[in-house]
Amino acid sequence: MHQLRKPYLLFLGDVALKSDAKTAFGLRDWCRNDVLGEWSLPSASVNLGLPRLAPAEAAALGAGSLVIGVAAVGGALPPHWLPTLEEALSAGMDIVSGLHSRLAQFPSLVQAAQRGGGRLVDVRHSDTSFPAGTGRKRSGNRVLTVGTDCALGKKYTALALTQALQQRGARATFRATGQTGVMIAGAGLAIDAVVSDFVAGAAEALSPDNSPGHWDVIEGQGALFHPAYAGVTLGLLHGSQPDALVLCHDPARSTIEGYPDFPIPALRQAIDRYVEAGQLTNRAVRCVGISINSSSLSDEAWAAYAATLSQQLQLPVCDPMRGGVDALADALLA
Amino acid sequence: MHQLRKPYLLFLGDVALKSDAKTAFGLRDWCRNDVLGEWSLPSASVNLGLPRLAPAEAAALGAGSLVIGVAAVGGALPPHWLPTLEEALSAGMDIVSGLHSRLAQFPSLVQAAQRGGGRLVDVRHSDTSFPAGTGRKRSGNRVLTVGTDCALGKKYTALALTQALQQRGARATFRATGQTGVMIAGAGLAIDAVVSDFVAGAAEALSPDNSPGHWDVIEGQGALFHPAYAGVTLGLLHGSQPDALVLCHDPARSTIEGYPDFPIPALRQAIDRYVEAGQLTNRAVRCVGISINSSSLSDEAWAAYAATLSQQLQLPVCDPMRGGVDALADALLA
Repeated sequence: MHQLRKPYLLFLGDVALKSDAKTAFGLRDWCRNDVLGEWSLPSASVNLGLPRLAPAEAAALGAGSLVIGVAAVGGALPPHWLPTLEEALSAGMDIVSGLHSRLAQFPSLVQAAQRGGGRLVDVRHSDTSFPAGTGRKRSGNRVLTVGTDCALGKKYTALALTQALQQRGARATFRATGQTGVMIAGAGLAIDAVVSDFVAGAAEALSPDNSPGHWDVIEGQGALFHPAYAGVTLGLLHGSQPDALVLCHDPARSTIEGYPDFPIPALRQAIDRYVEAGQLTNRAVRCVGISINSSSLSDEAWAAYAATLSQQLQLPVCDPMRGGVDALADALLA
Repeated sequence: MHQLRKPYLLFLGDVALKSDAKTAFGLRDWCRNDVLGEWSLPSASVNLGLPRLAPAEAAALGAGSLVIGVAAVGGALPPHWLPTLEEALSAGMDIVSGLHSRLAQFPSLVQAAQRGGGRLVDVRHSDTSFPAGTGRKRSGNRVLTVGTDCALGKKYTALALTQALQQRGARATFRATGQTGVMIAGAGLAIDAVVSDFVAGAAEALSPDNSPGHWDVIEGQGALFHPAYAGVTLGLLHGSQPDALVLCHDPARSTIEGYPDFPIPALRQAIDRYVEAGQLTNRAVRCVGISINSSSLSDEAWAAYAATLSQQLQLPVCDPMRGGVDALADALLA
């Protein structure tokens, strides 16, 4: 399980496209209070609108980690980024990376980390061993976001739902299962990096026993209808043993992204399949609402779509980016 | 993907219990023609009834690998086994191990392997990278053994079915997904050791495109009803995209082994769930029969049980250890 050291300095390398800095924008938007500033190489043409701080300046202000907030070509760490990372390490900070390259494969980073006492943290990888799942019922409440596909709002929905629950005075904790989520929360693990035998066990460890009335809001991964990732989704579902599910969906998609031969199921069918699968480890699991990524719809079309869907399914229908998820929080606490 | 070097010398260490030598007995029974002999330490009290050959003698007779055919306490390699393994390596053989310990963590084995030119093969671990699953339909036919629980005959059923198909003149290949299966087949991979993101992709690689009429007989793992391992089962099912399923079951079990709160489902329900899940990557998947581990039943009870079940489900019901799986092979080829 990763435990990151906040606050962060966000590093953008020599980014030229906003879409490559998705992670940095996500951190800025979802944990602004944990971000001291940003830094990039002179050739970078995208910025986050945050205070510009060199690594040594950020360290002097108390930064715990330099977070690489940008995707690199091919997932590898470009060698010309190393001097900046070494500067941060020498100043005592950790480096947090979601790149494919492991930080420890660069001897100059290992040496700088030893000098400064900081850590090299690869959130894409999982070096912890987990026991096999036990299926034992844990105390406290859990809600898991699930989806009709990958990459359509499961993380954002879980983050928004955590905030909405806290605003209602409920105790709620966001549980991150992907690398950006881990960076936002400062804790968690990339569940898809765990050896398959231990996915349910890792999910059990991620939301341990908690006090009655507390909600763990668990970030879902993949989809039961995805030909590559359904196994990850099922292991996470079983280990999470959620009391409640929120189904996430993007009405602009008719097939799984990148898999044109695999149709997105009807929402009623998707709910039934998730509930059926979830019942293995929690007989009482129920779907409490729908979270829609409505970015493809006009305001009018969205209003009509949400009203129709809500009536069809007899469930609240929200978009966390368009009106928020109050109705989902209310349904959970009802 | 592992590719092992046959023929084998089976090493039993200082085994005192037959049950600890399960792997060695399995290899003796399922690939006798690939086994030159056995070797053990003087303190061992179990033997396989095979020619006794010291590693150097076996190497002189052409042995490709010394296979550790015995479980060690805690899964670790006892240091007093090392001299025997070094002897085999020095003679040019590979060492094949299914223990938790990785062979490469013992410097004397690494050195001996360098001297002899052989390999250290840990079949429990997977160091190959696999791509994510594609869901692309592959040529040739596939049958997967699935189960109501773990450890109730999925491997034996697949092995017996492969033989029965071959006896009927069909082209058939056993595809191993667990460590003992890999040792028997000399190829394959431990699917539960693969990083969860790539399980379906690894399963796709395990049974690649094949000629029309050829059958890949794929060893199943885990169970959809198992709170720890269902994710592995689902990823293997999706990546295998089987045309046919054989459901394996032990009527002596009413709950998942080691999980007394998790009931074994009714067989009709189990079939429905596997077919429903399998349809994602192969719309035409069907269950062709049932393989029973009937060791708990008398001859009379078994005859009555098989007849009743076969009539209820309208499917052939076999026990590979008691009458064979001819009816399953016939159903596949029908």
